[in-house]
Amino acid sequence: MATDSWVNETLYSAWGQRFRVVRELARVQSAFQDIMIFESETHGRVMLLDGVVQITEGDEFVYQEMLTHVPLLAHGSAKRVLIIGAGDGGVLKRVLQHKGVERAVMVEIDGEVIRLCKEHLPGIGGDAWTDPRAEVIVGDGIDHVRKAAAGSFDVVIVDSTDPIGVGEVLFTDEFYANAARLLSDRGLVVNQCGVPFMQADELRETSIRRGKAFPDISAYVAAVPTYVGGFMTLGWASKDAAQRRVPVEEIRRRAEAAGILGITRYWTPEIHVGAFNLPPYIAETLPQG
Amino acid sequence: MATDSWVNETLYSAWGQRFRVVRELARVQSAFQDIMIFESETHGRVMLLDGVVQITEGDEFVYQEMLTHVPLLAHGSAKRVLIIGAGDGGVLKRVLQHKGVERAVMVEIDGEVIRLCKEHLPGIGGDAWTDPRAEVIVGDGIDHVRKAAAGSFDVVIVDSTDPIGVGEVLFTDEFYANAARLLSDRGLVVNQCGVPFMQADELRETSIRRGKAFPDISAYVAAVPTYVGGFMTLGWASKDAAQRRVPVEEIRRRAEAAGILGITRYWTPEIHVGAFNLPPYIAETLPQG
Repeated sequence: MATDSWVNETLYSAWGQRFRVVRELARVQSAFQDIMIFESETHGRVMLLDGVVQITEGDEFVYQEMLTHVPLLAHGSAKRVLIIGAGDGGVLKRVLQHKGVERAVMVEIDGEVIRLCKEHLPGIGGDAWTDPRAEVIVGDGIDHVRKAAAGSFDVVIVDSTDPIGVGEVLFTDEFYANAARLLSDRGLVVNQCGVPFMQADELRETSIRRGKAFPDISAYVAAVPTYVGGFMTLGWASKDAAQRRVPVEEIRRRAEAAGILGITRYWTPEIHVGAFNLPPYIAETLPQG
Repeated sequence: MATDSWVNETLYSAWGQRFRVVRELARVQSAFQDIMIFESETHGRVMLLDGVVQITEGDEFVYQEMLTHVPLLAHGSAKRVLIIGAGDGGVLKRVLQHKGVERAVMVEIDGEVIRLCKEHLPGIGGDAWTDPRAEVIVGDGIDHVRKAAAGSFDVVIVDSTDPIGVGEVLFTDEFYANAARLLSDRGLVVNQCGVPFMQADELRETSIRRGKAFPDISAYVAAVPTYVGGFMTLGWASKDAAQRRVPVEEIRRRAEAAGILGITRYWTPEIHVGAFNLPPYIAETLPQG
């Protein structure tokens, strides 16, 4: 590879980000998608799926911490966590940081993503892959939620691509109905819902679907450097509306008990609580009522 | 111009964003910098100075609201506001939205920026250019702060380029000493301090300089879509530490009295207060003590 080559993200047709490539590490066409991992100058190692940035070593902590610690600490006593997608292992690692978690099941459809991440992005999953509380399944998340026993999980975390292509089925009415069924009484599900400034319809449309299966739907925000366009939103669907109104001191107490306090680089109790305060330009994209 | 041309931002050497250009509107080499304005597909009209995105019609509200409403409402009774830079008129417009403001002086070094923004980005400054409370000076901000009478302003807002090139002099010890002198007893100054994820040293180095002239220094954050890299930071230097700890209900009361409540798209009382809660990866770049 030439020393001055660039990778251009192809997520949008009329706007894009590019990274100067130090070295290409992997380029694989799996049964599901085109997987590319390269070493950048600015962001450490970067993985793209079908031309869209999924994760970089430099900023993964923002997304992973907010996608994991917020639902687990909002719930307060989550013991069984189901992760859909997240083949890099970063969500699994953060889930297992919580002392109270007894079982984390991760279902990733593309085994090649797991294999390549273990090889080229080993720090992201770390020791999570061999934690005795973890069960890593290569398979169809849709199929898994269909078959899971009622009430068998406390939290579901969906770390998928956008609701196009491979990830589309993770945003359907059927998916949310199954998620509601497999969750326990106070269960909740979170999933990434894109960047409203660039993808205005994504949060609204998926929120409407979540609202058919859950009594409390909302969203919270995180400023993820490589998901460009201001705040990204994380969709929230819960059986218990009180969970997104837990006061900051109680979140801090739970984080301390869980072993999370002081080990994060983006998440804090204040940022956790504040993330539900949506700017009006985002709040207005949520369905009303 | 060809129908499929792109503009590549040149801020960083190994990462960049690009916009598909619908139409180039202006390209002028002024006495100070290269000014370019074009119509994009995704962000409305966009202005670059020396190849760096300064403002887009699509997302300017985020930056302008946070740079203006936070210091004015934190102060609580600002009547005289000095704006350095901000040749597009967007900060001036937001300052004049505050009913209590009696005088807003804006000093922009490059008259060509003002002229081109009035012509091609008229909605950004709006009626502010002809408001009787506004005084727009084409001149050197450094010179202006040197000569301004002691205690003659309540808030200073610095909307400059990064501390390189034209903007460098707005981050010196001399500038902050003069800012402290021209501010009234409870005065404060804010200025844009870059995106810590991409420009880690900018906030730290400029904070050290602010700390030589002001007793209370800090920073607050905003997620600005086109200042890419997660949160950007707005540097804060005040004579009164209580100003960044005003409770949310008092900020709401002040905003209502000022005529700001309900007219913003990013700023809210909750986001105002929450913006001072820095993620650890940003907090650690602030000087300690």
